[in-house]
Amino acid sequence: VVRLGERKLLLTTDLLIEGIHFRRDWMKPEEIGFKAMRVNLSDIAAMGGAPRFALISLGLPREWRGRAAERLFQGLRSAGEEAGAVIVGGDTNASGRLVVNVALAGEAGPRLLLRSGARPGDRLFVTGRLGGSAAGLAALEGKRRRGFESLIARHKRPPLRVAVGYILAKTRGVTSAIDLSDGLAGDLPHLLEASGVGADVQMEAIPLFPGLRSASARLRRNPLGLALGGGEDYELLFTASPRVKIPNKIGGIPITNLGIITPKSRGLRWVSGGGTIRRGDFPGFRHF
Amino acid sequence: VVRLGERKLLLTTDLLIEGIHFRRDWMKPEEIGFKAMRVNLSDIAAMGGAPRFALISLGLPREWRGRAAERLFQGLRSAGEEAGAVIVGGDTNASGRLVVNVALAGEAGPRLLLRSGARPGDRLFVTGRLGGSAAGLAALEGKRRRGFESLIARHKRPPLRVAVGYILAKTRGVTSAIDLSDGLAGDLPHLLEASGVGADVQMEAIPLFPGLRSASARLRRNPLGLALGGGEDYELLFTASPRVKIPNKIGGIPITNLGIITPKSRGLRWVSGGGTIRRGDFPGFRHF
Repeated sequence: VVRLGERKLLLTTDLLIEGIHFRRDWMKPEEIGFKAMRVNLSDIAAMGGAPRFALISLGLPREWRGRAAERLFQGLRSAGEEAGAVIVGGDTNASGRLVVNVALAGEAGPRLLLRSGARPGDRLFVTGRLGGSAAGLAALEGKRRRGFESLIARHKRPPLRVAVGYILAKTRGVTSAIDLSDGLAGDLPHLLEASGVGADVQMEAIPLFPGLRSASARLRRNPLGLALGGGEDYELLFTASPRVKIPNKIGGIPITNLGIITPKSRGLRWVSGGGTIRRGDFPGFRHF
Repeated sequence: VVRLGERKLLLTTDLLIEGIHFRRDWMKPEEIGFKAMRVNLSDIAAMGGAPRFALISLGLPREWRGRAAERLFQGLRSAGEEAGAVIVGGDTNASGRLVVNVALAGEAGPRLLLRSGARPGDRLFVTGRLGGSAAGLAALEGKRRRGFESLIARHKRPPLRVAVGYILAKTRGVTSAIDLSDGLAGDLPHLLEASGVGADVQMEAIPLFPGLRSASARLRRNPLGLALGGGEDYELLFTASPRVKIPNKIGGIPITNLGIITPKSRGLRWVSGGGTIRRGDFPGFRHF
């Protein structure tokens, strides 16, 4: 967040490298472009801002110079325009591997949502449902597609939460927000750290992506592990004062109360039923 | 150039990939970072703007995770701060090859310099002296360093022309500008195309980097070829109305009149003595 005259400008960038962030054999060029833009939009959404301008840098392998590059660009453009962001420039180069960098400039919304505003007593919420992208990735890795279509689609097309973020920024009593790129278990600590607080999270409250349980059984994965540690949900995690009522849907997107913010000394506790769960109690958590 | 309220924002980005834009065995981490930032600053300089905020994306090979990455970042930061640009964010990833993307946001200066403002009758000028970077690269490629130090230094450290660009933007009668990344012969056509004009360039007027003639002889290269087609000069090429007097130095930087802008129908002509030179007459022009 930077100040430009009396305006606040939001700046964010993400670098995607083939073989590390995506695989060309799993994703079409337009899907790679679309996802690259959505991932950046998610950062602006979490601050309650309005995306405005994008700069695209492409490193293109030889076989990508023609039609494939156009399709990649088309994916970037359509994801951007849908959210109000126009591609205003960029840089294209030769590269061995495909490299896509998106830099996005947005304007702050009615209020700026930061990671640092959560206070003890606040309620903790999440938009949408978790674990779909991680399960889709697991299906792709296992070369299984049939029956996993909606999960794979979620992996390829992260949700757009700009409108919800903007509404949250307008909502009095919303105190902090962050987007979930590394999973609830990966990103919640960032919010707690920035705010200087702890949290009790009710495990049973965690909203699982539709079909996640059955898909997880078929993939021999732990559904809660995917929902907590899988990453790439690109949902918004936010906190709000207990004095405000947060509806259970915003703009059609389900909102779930996950727990409560506590003093820092209490730390982050994952609560199931009445008891606290420790890290080692989760079989199958890769990133947790 | 985008509008944000009543302000004009300048946005630019450049992607550098190891093995294509630089070689790790030729450049230290801090030199790579320094040059990556300077290259982006050059775009803002050519528009007469003031650099403000930078976003850095790094793809780091395994052996670059520690001290080397810090040195790279230090190079980026020092080049930015010297020009008024602060690094406000970024993204760091694993990568096989080193990847550096800089996205830079600046504010328009007193007036916006564009490529499209040149008119027939305008004079054509260039800042500084050309060909030094290309000769330095040729020396590195030929594994020759002794006696080529100042040329190699120019290759590694492109000049900073932000102050000159800002002064040009304040100077009435300056009609257009572009920075020289692809050499005079590569970038002048972009300016002419955007302005819908032609130009007569006096070959004898082209200012050669100090020591370029003798270095070219030792490297068996054509000095004019390096000055015209070598690239990476990062000097400013600009035009001004004949009614204004352009000094022969601005902020200590030499300014050279290269020729005159002509109607589009005359095209781009390279003039030597009295006659026009054609493309084929230049031995040793690689990019020309």
